[in-house]
Amino acid sequence: MNRLASLDIAFNPASVAIAGVGTLNGGKAYLDSLLSAGFQGRIYPLNPKGGEISGWKVYPHVQDIPGPVDYVISCVPAAQVPQLIKDCSEKGVKVASLFTAGFSETGREEGRQLEREVQRLAQGGGVRIIGPNCMGVYCPRAGLSFVLDFPKESGGVAFVCQSGGNAIYFVRCGARRGIRFSKVISYGNACDVDETDLLEYLIQDTETKIVAAYVEGVRDGKRFRQVLRKLAARKPVVILKGGTTPAGARTAAAHTSALSGSDAVWDALLRQAGAIRVDTMEEMIDMVVTFLFMRLPLGRRVAMVGGGGGASVLAADVCTANGFALPPIPPEVGSEIRSHLVTDAGAVLTNPIELNMYPESSYNIARSLLAYEAVHFLLVNCVVGQHPWPMFDAWFDIVCDTAIRVRDQVSKPVAVVLPSDIQGDDQVFVTLQQRYYEAGLPVYHSMSGACRAIDRFLRYHKRPTSTDEIG
Amino acid sequence: MNRLASLDIAFNPASVAIAGVGTLNGGKAYLDSLLSAGFQGRIYPLNPKGGEISGWKVYPHVQDIPGPVDYVISCVPAAQVPQLIKDCSEKGVKVASLFTAGFSETGREEGRQLEREVQRLAQGGGVRIIGPNCMGVYCPRAGLSFVLDFPKESGGVAFVCQSGGNAIYFVRCGARRGIRFSKVISYGNACDVDETDLLEYLIQDTETKIVAAYVEGVRDGKRFRQVLRKLAARKPVVILKGGTTPAGARTAAAHTSALSGSDAVWDALLRQAGAIRVDTMEEMIDMVVTFLFMRLPLGRRVAMVGGGGGASVLAADVCTANGFALPPIPPEVGSEIRSHLVTDAGAVLTNPIELNMYPESSYNIARSLLAYEAVHFLLVNCVVGQHPWPMFDAWFDIVCDTAIRVRDQVSKPVAVVLPSDIQGDDQVFVTLQQRYYEAGLPVYHSMSGACRAIDRFLRYHKRPTSTDEIG
Repeated sequence: MNRLASLDIAFNPASVAIAGVGTLNGGKAYLDSLLSAGFQGRIYPLNPKGGEISGWKVYPHVQDIPGPVDYVISCVPAAQVPQLIKDCSEKGVKVASLFTAGFSETGREEGRQLEREVQRLAQGGGVRIIGPNCMGVYCPRAGLSFVLDFPKESGGVAFVCQSGGNAIYFVRCGARRGIRFSKVISYGNACDVDETDLLEYLIQDTETKIVAAYVEGVRDGKRFRQVLRKLAARKPVVILKGGTTPAGARTAAAHTSALSGSDAVWDALLRQAGAIRVDTMEEMIDMVVTFLFMRLPLGRRVAMVGGGGGASVLAADVCTANGFALPPIPPEVGSEIRSHLVTDAGAVLTNPIELNMYPESSYNIARSLLAYEAVHFLLVNCVVGQHPWPMFDAWFDIVCDTAIRVRDQVSKPVAVVLPSDIQGDDQVFVTLQQRYYEAGLPVYHSMSGACRAIDRFLRYHKRPTSTDEIG
Repeated sequence: MNRLASLDIAFNPASVAIAGVGTLNGGKAYLDSLLSAGFQGRIYPLNPKGGEISGWKVYPHVQDIPGPVDYVISCVPAAQVPQLIKDCSEKGVKVASLFTAGFSETGREEGRQLEREVQRLAQGGGVRIIGPNCMGVYCPRAGLSFVLDFPKESGGVAFVCQSGGNAIYFVRCGARRGIRFSKVISYGNACDVDETDLLEYLIQDTETKIVAAYVEGVRDGKRFRQVLRKLAARKPVVILKGGTTPAGARTAAAHTSALSGSDAVWDALLRQAGAIRVDTMEEMIDMVVTFLFMRLPLGRRVAMVGGGGGASVLAADVCTANGFALPPIPPEVGSEIRSHLVTDAGAVLTNPIELNMYPESSYNIARSLLAYEAVHFLLVNCVVGQHPWPMFDAWFDIVCDTAIRVRDQVSKPVAVVLPSDIQGDDQVFVTLQQRYYEAGLPVYHSMSGACRAIDRFLRYHKRPTSTDEIG
């Protein structure tokens, strides 16, 4: 079976066995995750003790399972993995995902040897391995998951991630910003299936429109470059490289035994391949949100609406510092805006302009500002936490309605900044964020994050890279 | 009465009148805020219609109030403010805080004239003015507040803020990080009491240990410089300058009619005066948290503990990029740490090192790492949202217990990073954050934020400014 076909099975198995299911352990958590994700195929818990768990018959060994098994998740101790792989091979299992850790990432010779043995057994026995030391596959369309709380719906974003924790963090944070996933693969030590295999698979995966990847190291730089170039020619690819400093690289070696490579080499490689490099998980989320939800602006001139003088001052500074221009409002646009005002009190006819508590007036202001020909897109600056009194709570809904209406009426892009440092049980924030992304608007958690992502978006599409170019 | 004495009254009035109290308006919100803050003096709602509001007798005019009045909050329309100031003057009111907007910030001649008239009436009549176009004073010890949800307890941090929205945002965000306040003053257009008066007051205010300020412009640069230098010689001063770019300055002019001044001039002025300049609200909170809770490290060598390989790789990269070193663990410290492990599985003996689900083991690991002589302080990297299963929820409490115990046992500083991009109704996050700050530990919302703040803290105390200097 060729490499892509085995990955097809990993993303759509008809049957899954979980080795090492106990009453309260990783194996049980995988079982619960599959059930919660609505996996429709056959599920076989494995444990040498047999018996039952949560009403499911537990099979002692892979060979005891009556029907065929496509996919095995290993939660047994490292020393038992070689035997498990032999059993899998005999049973005709196509793919094994090894949650089990304790291999080359330990930095000890016995761990390295064990990993080589597993690799040899798998390749000799026709079983493809994801991991070891990984979370495996989240593929909502197939009902595959490794946690309980990931979204059940599919989407167009694939995430290839060397770290299990980063994969989980990315999906959870991304989900709250409206990202939905085609395939997420935490691939750990990559003793068999590696980042390049996965990226290659995604070239032809029609479900995937945008690819994000967290990579600590690659085994075959030349092949990686070739595949990445092909992939990036077809779809936006956003890459976060972990281990770019000596301390980070040392940590990466201990994490997934990755060889990190020099930062400058990575920079050149990613640029030449046409991938977008980001520096943090937050930037990666911002970038994916941008590709998913942001319409392409024709340039870098911004109209901004907000609701707080001081917040607008700081936001204007951040925009300018990031290479965006806020054109002043010319008299004729100013008069038009003034005609929309319900009251003059507190009216500030600059760009940024303040929205108010009157829905129709706010909408007309935003519409006039965005219709102004010098302006390329609208930034909505929505700072939860800066309004003094409950009587202003309705403001956020007015702004949200305004943003959605304006986007529907004016053929220019609209983006929303919802600063997130007000942390807590803030239902206003969560509800607003969901309203925005459900309407298809990109939501950013800081003005600087929005500017950085939209800047990269413009560069990716070869739009003006500085305000000097916009004439 | 001299300038400082009138400010004393503004921060501790025996009686407050609120002009323009209606059933659901700003005046009513001020009334509710005073009551909620536990103001113990006399309160007099004012409204020409008289009557009652929420059981309080409403007086038609200031003159109708039976006893003396120290402090008046104006929520009447701009055009009525001159008469109000005349009434205040006649009544012997010491300070008036003008929530009322519609003055010079409108950019129109009539607004500027009105503001000059108010200024003239106030200065002629012995009434000091805070504002107009401001929220006024929050002083929890005196029971003064302008919102309902600010902390009731006092603390050592003063915040002088030209923007009402930024003041509210700072107090709310800061409160959730453990900051408590002596005095917060939103001073708006500064037609009388200005930023320099307030900073001068804080020089001798024994309740205030740390000063933060958001400033859009100053009227008298020379006096500002002199006062700032005096203040910064006594207490840490953190300043955020709004309006540093042309668009920001234009916005500031429209916000508080401030003249922003050049960014380079501000940079030199603040550096020479010994104040710490920050670029965002988040950095200002980080800096205040650092001065409040961080013990001074002797240098820039960090020990880090965390709980996720990928998160540790990225954190190590961020630390290094920000001029901190993570010394590798030498064999003897490694053996000591190994002796604390309950199990070898997944044990990674690098720096950063992973904590585990065993409280005693985790504590001993952190203790050995921090006791290692090459290390100056401990960073705890606590990424909520990256753990797969509920069985790991206890991990965060184990880490929190570990951090507090280690801080109590080892005489080196400990700081905590609790990344906040997992946004929502996450009670785990909120509860953890509170546990940390209540134990007196600084909590940061990103690794880069922590590094930037601790870097500035070290520079402020003239500690090594790069890892080259630490030998």
